[in-house]
Amino acid sequence: MGFDDVAAVVRDRVEPSPAEREALAEAVETLLTRVEAAVADLDVPATVTHVGSTARDTWLRGERDIDVFVEFPTNLSRGALEQYGLQIGHEVLPEGREEYAEHPYVTGDIDGFAVDLVPCYAVPSAHAIESAVDRTPFHSAYLKERLTPEHVAEIRVFKQFLQAICVYGSNLRTQGFSGYLTELLVLEFGSTKAVLEAAVDWQPPVVIDPEDHGERSFPDPLVVIDPTDPTRNVAAVLSAENLARFQHHARDILANPRVAAFFPAPPEPLSVADVEAHITARGTTPLALVFPTPDLVDDELYPQLRKSLDGIGDELDRRGFDVLRQSVFADTRAVLLFELAVPTRPRVTRHLGPPVAVRKHAETFYDTYADEDAYGPFIDGNRYVVERAREFDTARAFLESDALFETRLGPAIEAALREDATILEGQEVTELADAFGVAFARYFAPSP
Amino acid sequence: MGFDDVAAVVRDRVEPSPAEREALAEAVETLLTRVEAAVADLDVPATVTHVGSTARDTWLRGERDIDVFVEFPTNLSRGALEQYGLQIGHEVLPEGREEYAEHPYVTGDIDGFAVDLVPCYAVPSAHAIESAVDRTPFHSAYLKERLTPEHVAEIRVFKQFLQAICVYGSNLRTQGFSGYLTELLVLEFGSTKAVLEAAVDWQPPVVIDPEDHGERSFPDPLVVIDPTDPTRNVAAVLSAENLARFQHHARDILANPRVAAFFPAPPEPLSVADVEAHITARGTTPLALVFPTPDLVDDELYPQLRKSLDGIGDELDRRGFDVLRQSVFADTRAVLLFELAVPTRPRVTRHLGPPVAVRKHAETFYDTYADEDAYGPFIDGNRYVVERAREFDTARAFLESDALFETRLGPAIEAALREDATILEGQEVTELADAFGVAFARYFAPSP
Repeated sequence: MGFDDVAAVVRDRVEPSPAEREALAEAVETLLTRVEAAVADLDVPATVTHVGSTARDTWLRGERDIDVFVEFPTNLSRGALEQYGLQIGHEVLPEGREEYAEHPYVTGDIDGFAVDLVPCYAVPSAHAIESAVDRTPFHSAYLKERLTPEHVAEIRVFKQFLQAICVYGSNLRTQGFSGYLTELLVLEFGSTKAVLEAAVDWQPPVVIDPEDHGERSFPDPLVVIDPTDPTRNVAAVLSAENLARFQHHARDILANPRVAAFFPAPPEPLSVADVEAHITARGTTPLALVFPTPDLVDDELYPQLRKSLDGIGDELDRRGFDVLRQSVFADTRAVLLFELAVPTRPRVTRHLGPPVAVRKHAETFYDTYADEDAYGPFIDGNRYVVERAREFDTARAFLESDALFETRLGPAIEAALREDATILEGQEVTELADAFGVAFARYFAPSP
Repeated sequence: MGFDDVAAVVRDRVEPSPAEREALAEAVETLLTRVEAAVADLDVPATVTHVGSTARDTWLRGERDIDVFVEFPTNLSRGALEQYGLQIGHEVLPEGREEYAEHPYVTGDIDGFAVDLVPCYAVPSAHAIESAVDRTPFHSAYLKERLTPEHVAEIRVFKQFLQAICVYGSNLRTQGFSGYLTELLVLEFGSTKAVLEAAVDWQPPVVIDPEDHGERSFPDPLVVIDPTDPTRNVAAVLSAENLARFQHHARDILANPRVAAFFPAPPEPLSVADVEAHITARGTTPLALVFPTPDLVDDELYPQLRKSLDGIGDELDRRGFDVLRQSVFADTRAVLLFELAVPTRPRVTRHLGPPVAVRKHAETFYDTYADEDAYGPFIDGNRYVVERAREFDTARAFLESDALFETRLGPAIEAALREDATILEGQEVTELADAFGVAFARYFAPSP
């Protein structure tokens, strides 16, 4: 099968069914009626807009998300906007609950659809926003004006592809492609195949500017200038790793088109015995810090987890405990996993001094260490060297010490580690297999 | 005691006694008479010259070396020169034995003095030499013309200092200061103290050109242009390490002048138990290659041992077995000692591929490893990575393999290792303490 045949099959499979569309239309109508009624009770005017993929028919079969924005005048205070937003939300979605992004909003359920009801300011342009959500209605309007039914069908295929390779989603856990970015790319290139064919040869940084109005540069590997805001990169959240992953899979699917690649089965979870076998085969020493996951939204949790992983990993490396690989797992417990090539070091560590000829520094170095309980100073090449006692000769001793808290840690992670952390070493980590079998599967059978 | 007082005491102690001088004079007279007689029997003219420190009164009390050179006309063939040289040698020193530097000569004993009887060519200038020994008579003549009795006394003090700090001798084992270099430095600066005071602030490379006639540059840290040959660096053999050592001790003796520093006791040899205690305290893994010492002169043996030590040490490092320190010991057995911080590595090793965006290289890398029995390829940052089986997961396994012979080895060392090598690991090396107790003492109590 050629790529076009594969894409046609995928297109059919991801298109919402007539029954789904009908159910959606009914739910949206019910919802908008209720919101309009709630707005009418207020003493300020407000515009109600259905946005997002269900508004543009770019949703995938089986997805059930409705996003409705309520745009208030910009002269309304932020406090009042938040209050009105919540008031409407609770009136429309009596069983809904409050969430918090840049400001609070209400999320709930109508006829089996997940509804986000978000208040924002009706700013004059996307460049003049007061908070990030104010942009959404502009994005929605821009796309609605331009997307053809052909675009819409291709967007679904492209989105399915990005989901299959785990790079769909602009949250800070995924660091992938946002829905808006996905739609802009298809609009720009015309089809999924055209996007993929362009991507295989991208040399990051890649800059795409649909309206040719970009006003500044960005440090990101992929830059797509927002058609509604010349100062914003729509792809700012996309990581270099996910862009590389996308390029790899673009080449792969074009070289070997197949429907199955769009609908991968999730990996089989590894058992305790599987994890044990991998550790033995690799001959490494896993070291895990395990603690109750802090109660934060993913957009706050994952950046803190990654910062902590990098901070501790760098310090382990600096202290000579070579980290072969490291990873984060999280559900109710969070795991910072370091797979060490070298879990122990000698009691002494080499400390290289200045060249003997650089008299002032050399004399200071020599005088500092001459009477210390150390080997040396002696001369190696043209420099002084001393072998001093190492602070920690096992990685575990370092993790158990207060020096752990001098590394770069997310604040909530530091608090959690201080309160209640367990260290697992070597085969002890196999006890995590019950909870994190799929994460272990991805870790021990890594693929692009 | 100030430095001058210390130097005065040392001067007295190292000056040959009247009885020694008388014995030397008698031995030299006997020797020269015999050599002249032997030369008279030849059908070519030749000049007999007493050279070296006993010829210039710069020998230390207790030293007993007489060097006599026999200078032949340059039209004599090399073969004839060697034959005549040996013939005279055996006639004068009937119990002597042949040695070999650039060409053969005879060494033996007269009245308790060690005699070297060396044939050379009477070249017109030191620059026109046919072999290195042809220079010696020029050096001898240059110094004899210029050295005052004060210089001579200071040279003995300086030589004693250099011996005390183990940097005296231009052989390739020591890589230190030659006798000629030592005498030139005192001639140039006027006294031991003046040389030391200059040396404390040297910023290598340091260039000294007594006759101000140097014709080229040299890559060495100390350059002393030969007054008898503008194209030669007298200090070419001096290593950067020994120059640094000299600077350290120059500062030390000037800051804290003491007679004892000129006459250090040799270190107490370490016992098996001492070596064991050091290994435990350091928490390292010593790994020793032990083999019968090849039958070579030190000037050939030590460069080969050091080349092999560096070649194997670099390869151990490259394979992840961090070498904390390495050293060579030799008597009848030779020891290449590697003190490892990391004696074992995991079974897998990380292999970093190209950035995914560099399509041609990236595709080649991916295709190469996709079907191999390895972890990955996966993506880390913007690059492919694969974790492959490591060739050797212990340093010992590497030393036991044929891969050892792919490192840079001296040819005689390679032959010895192939024939009969033993590997000692960890506390097994303590069995070397009986033979190498002093070497272990220098190794485990290193000083400048």
